[in-house]
Amino acid sequence: MMDLEWVDGGVTAPPGFLAAGVRCGLKSKGRDLGLLGSPRGCAAAGLFTTNTMPGWPVVLSREILAECGKVAGVVANSGVSNVATGAAGLAAAKEMSSAAATLFAALWGSDERPALVAQTGIIGEVPAIDRIRSGIADAGLSLSEDGGPDFAEAIMTTDTVPKSRAVRLKIGGSVVTVGGAAKGAGMIAPNMATMLAFLTTDAALTPDAARALLVPAVNESFNRISIDGDMSTSDMCLLLANGESGVAVEPGAESGRRFAQALAALCEALAVDLVRDAEGVTRICRVDVLGAASDDDAVRAARAVAESPLVKSALFGSDPNWGRLWMAVGKSGARADASRLSIRIGDVSVLETGTPKPEGKRLAAGPMGEPEVRITIDLGLGDGRAHFWFSDLTYEYVRINAEYHT
Amino acid sequence: MMDLEWVDGGVTAPPGFLAAGVRCGLKSKGRDLGLLGSPRGCAAAGLFTTNTMPGWPVVLSREILAECGKVAGVVANSGVSNVATGAAGLAAAKEMSSAAATLFAALWGSDERPALVAQTGIIGEVPAIDRIRSGIADAGLSLSEDGGPDFAEAIMTTDTVPKSRAVRLKIGGSVVTVGGAAKGAGMIAPNMATMLAFLTTDAALTPDAARALLVPAVNESFNRISIDGDMSTSDMCLLLANGESGVAVEPGAESGRRFAQALAALCEALAVDLVRDAEGVTRICRVDVLGAASDDDAVRAARAVAESPLVKSALFGSDPNWGRLWMAVGKSGARADASRLSIRIGDVSVLETGTPKPEGKRLAAGPMGEPEVRITIDLGLGDGRAHFWFSDLTYEYVRINAEYHT
Repeated sequence: MMDLEWVDGGVTAPPGFLAAGVRCGLKSKGRDLGLLGSPRGCAAAGLFTTNTMPGWPVVLSREILAECGKVAGVVANSGVSNVATGAAGLAAAKEMSSAAATLFAALWGSDERPALVAQTGIIGEVPAIDRIRSGIADAGLSLSEDGGPDFAEAIMTTDTVPKSRAVRLKIGGSVVTVGGAAKGAGMIAPNMATMLAFLTTDAALTPDAARALLVPAVNESFNRISIDGDMSTSDMCLLLANGESGVAVEPGAESGRRFAQALAALCEALAVDLVRDAEGVTRICRVDVLGAASDDDAVRAARAVAESPLVKSALFGSDPNWGRLWMAVGKSGARADASRLSIRIGDVSVLETGTPKPEGKRLAAGPMGEPEVRITIDLGLGDGRAHFWFSDLTYEYVRINAEYHT
Repeated sequence: MMDLEWVDGGVTAPPGFLAAGVRCGLKSKGRDLGLLGSPRGCAAAGLFTTNTMPGWPVVLSREILAECGKVAGVVANSGVSNVATGAAGLAAAKEMSSAAATLFAALWGSDERPALVAQTGIIGEVPAIDRIRSGIADAGLSLSEDGGPDFAEAIMTTDTVPKSRAVRLKIGGSVVTVGGAAKGAGMIAPNMATMLAFLTTDAALTPDAARALLVPAVNESFNRISIDGDMSTSDMCLLLANGESGVAVEPGAESGRRFAQALAALCEALAVDLVRDAEGVTRICRVDVLGAASDDDAVRAARAVAESPLVKSALFGSDPNWGRLWMAVGKSGARADASRLSIRIGDVSVLETGTPKPEGKRLAAGPMGEPEVRITIDLGLGDGRAHFWFSDLTYEYVRINAEYHT
């Protein structure tokens, strides 16, 4: 592979980025407001939930990116998602964005550039804009190049640990850094579920290049995890590039290829961090589907496995009940032929070309009890392949979601 | 409406049907083998799982129906589903069918007519054919016109109560009876999930008429319930008509219209019985989606609500967190406009044309705690409508499915 060096610092690992995370009182405790930006300004790209009734921050940030590729940074809060809040919610999101933009410009003595907005938490409550305003002012005072971890904390909802990662690589002899922070932890499903992810880099990217690099990285990572199959109204993944390293990265060139690998590794690591901290999780699983008639079919089958409540319950119970894998593949709509299907749990073959292996269930009980279970499903039809990471369905998941309050 | 009289007896309520349910040792306890048929023979129609890797009974029964519309009856077992069992499983299903067919012919002194096969239970284990054979012989000895309830017991897996219903109506002055037995209770989802349903009638139907009447009845009932969104490999719904009443029913005519209403009422009642006895259920919900751009859109939105783990968890917790309803509608793909959406829980309006009602959550806590919650979602776009029944997601659901053994 390539020589990637994992480093501390998260979103502020790349030089030239400043961040902060403070408490403004939207959640019952903990930091709940974050600022992240670069005095140089950033080329930006974003991917957003496909939910047709998204929150106002999604609507507003999409608009900002459509109008201008260069932003000062982003303001984010947890506790309130600003979804289903009517006209008052849109006004609040705009005020939040413009307060942050004004502050960034004042602090850095630069022209005013827009600030993207991300919000996550309870649906249906208009955010308390006075708290957010005072939070933005506080955060402005503590913006720092060591602020990445605080920022990662400020975006947490039911997450139990902050998710913060960064990686360093060399492109053409120069060092480039890519950092990230993400939050889950329920409503995680393919296609950008309740998830916020902020990626930063000191590479020099155009907005188009940022988008071209972001799409495949997200597709193979954040869109390949499933916690509960629900799709939030607030998800977004933003990539901010401030160009501080002076290293230009172009999607078609060698620089783009190297950067893409680093970005993919970072996104994959953050995505698996999300699954590891899924609501109520006790055990996670990676399912690989091979031999599908097409890659799309492989994604379909892997997703059906990852989203099945029966598979997830079996994972919780360490129950190597592979019949549920068969069921899920069959309901997925992927082309499948019972007489060609083979299934392995860890290294144990439990089904080979349609026929159960004697003692398969007994032998698979061991690997099914590992903290990270590996399942391989070979459809025996072609070259299509895909993987998904998913968490188990537990008593605690139900408790959290039946009794959830801010 | 029409004058329907609900009566006892289930599948043997219609004159001329005989049934039995016995224990042959496929489950750890209780009756696990059932026979049902009519000495006159039956016109038959069936609907089957859309899972692409169905069990052998599905494959075989489909074949039988394609070849001949008239059958002696059906043999069913619980405990083992005969899915993912390779060639040995197909041989077992065929042997089971032919043993039942031979027995029916011998008992009734009739020509040998085929017997349909239904099996439900663990996947991946070849059924013990010797036990099934002796069970069929035993059941033959106890076939009776009062055997409906025993038959309903013999098809139970994780069901806690048998589901047996029958209804009587008059068509052109003559009495016609329609009976049914069904089993759930997990893997229930639209499109014929882990569900077996057997419907009987003494009306005179051609196989084509039986199918024409069965399809809409199933679509509006068994295909409008969701327990866990998983789709079993074994589902089927069979309609057997023995003509004993001498009343001919034709889909296009008044007789067909009246019969269709009775069949719809019976299927709806059995479908809701399944949801009431869902694995781990504490509370059920009927969601009605109105004002959709089309009926298909309404089905899409209602299904997304019914299948959402977050909505199901909120139902368990009596949590009137309507934001999750908004989320589910938005992820469903149905045309939706945030500014037109209205939501009621029971009689309490919590969202009106996109704006939350003050005190909505507090007021909705009462109706959200009812044993049968009613949710109404008005998309405000057109005339499309649909409903779904679903169960809550509970600790007990997880326990049953994490620790499930025969």
